Amino acid sequence: MTSHKKLINAQKRTHTRLCVGLDPDSSKLPKGFGPAVEDILKFTLGVIEATESVVPVYKINFAFFEKFGAKGFSAIETIMERIPENIFTIADAKRGDIGNSSRMYADMIFSHFNFDAVTISPYMGSDSVEPFLEYKDKMVFLLARTSNKGGDDFQSLISDGKFIYEHVVEKSSSWASAEQLGYVVGATRPEELAKIRKIVPANALLIPGIGTQGGDLESVLKANGSATAIINVSRGIIFTEVREDYQEDIYLATLSYAELLPIED
Amino acid sequence: MTSHKKLINAQKRTHTRLCVGLDPDSSKLPKGFGPAVEDILKFTLGVIEATESVVPVYKINFAFFEKFGAKGFSAIETIMERIPENIFTIADAKRGDIGNSSRMYADMIFSHFNFDAVTISPYMGSDSVEPFLEYKDKMVFLLARTSNKGGDDFQSLISDGKFIYEHVVEKSSSWASAEQLGYVVGATRPEELAKIRKIVPANALLIPGIGTQGGDLESVLKANGSATAIINVSRGIIFTEVREDYQEDIYLATLSYAELLPIED
Repeated sequence: MTSHKKLINAQKRTHTRLCVGLDPDSSKLPKGFGPAVEDILKFTLGVIEATESVVPVYKINFAFFEKFGAKGFSAIETIMERIPENIFTIADAKRGDIGNSSRMYADMIFSHFNFDAVTISPYMGSDSVEPFLEYKDKMVFLLARTSNKGGDDFQSLISDGKFIYEHVVEKSSSWASAEQLGYVVGATRPEELAKIRKIVPANALLIPGIGTQGGDLESVLKANGSATAIINVSRGIIFTEVREDYQEDIYLATLSYAELLPIED
Repeated sequence: MTSHKKLINAQKRTHTRLCVGLDPDSSKLPKGFGPAVEDILKFTLGVIEATESVVPVYKINFAFFEKFGAKGFSAIETIMERIPENIFTIADAKRGDIGNSSRMYADMIFSHFNFDAVTISPYMGSDSVEPFLEYKDKMVFLLARTSNKGGDDFQSLISDGKFIYEHVVEKSSSWASAEQLGYVVGATRPEELAKIRKIVPANALLIPGIGTQGGDLESVLKANGSATAIINVSRGIIFTEVREDYQEDIYLATLSYAELLPIED
């Protein structure tokens, strides 16, 4: 089964577009957890245990693990073995390099860790993305319009009457099928999300920035329409409460967000 | 001592602008080496042993190690412990994410691995780069003009009469001092390198693409002028000969390149 099909199945099964972002910040763990990588791992496995019955997608933010070097990568290995086979997994790794290097990164993400999808930076162009697209059964989410303040610096420059992020989406949309190539579009800019939806009506969008970053859920859902979207919540779920019995809180926060992000049958 | 000062000292000591790129491709190792991460590590340590007396800078391409997951990261840890203190080290990791994630990546590169410098993708703008720049003693090389074919896709779009890569250099040059912020500029485009040199006459440039990628040494040196430049050679040195007694070949190839890239006293 392709990863795209797995995504659709998982969203139908759970009736939600929610993605739980696993960005475990060692300074914000529940009582009883220390700052070591072992604690980060234990907490993340606890989050998965609490939420796996209701979640279609997990996104693992590599930064929060790489911080610990080899031990952090080892934690990602353990987490990937733990996540049930029918849950879609995104490596939020934002890689991208010349061809032979991107090939190694693609090996890492898809062969070594066995993720379903990866986030990629577009700055180096087609041949930096292609090695990831050679894994025909997997998915790539290209950064288009990011939710942070600095996203304006270069993405909002105008060339030939269009924003750079529009060029990124337009040009790259011919590099692979709509089922293989998706885009990262921040929830903080719903009007731009709508614009991107017009360029790529069928491609999946990965939408971070709900909650802590200030994105408005209703505007985002309206701007996206009925096409495939994965809506990521990280800090809004995994740091709802910093208390020892965190699993119930996280489960309840996940359920609330899941209901706010329904998939119609 | 700041990393910038360390760079200048190392180049003066060795009289060269050469950087040896450690991109060990498991399919191209000398006879007697297998495809396992242990062989990659052994080969890389062999390259360092053969070249450390004549080299001012090593650049470690993370892709070639991450391919092996945790064991690959562990190999980078071993390599960083092995490289002499007075040789400048670049993490060619091409990271870049929203602020709190970039902070974790900066921790990884500068605190965990203790690199002197890192390569960063500019697409997400100022707040994705800032956490790296908070390490005031370290250096950041921002991707400006890359040496690959796809580099044209978005870097060559024109906005307000200037190429996107010119906007990247111009705008970012105010984010930090010339001693802290450098740029990656491919050797395959010397005329564009000259243009970037005009915008940032004092910032260090990291120039890959000599040798295998077709960059012409003489044009590159002319375009750069006398300002600080680090000129990377990877495959041209570490895969000169694929034979068991590889260390002498690699030493001699390094010496040849070092002499072609002199630093005047």
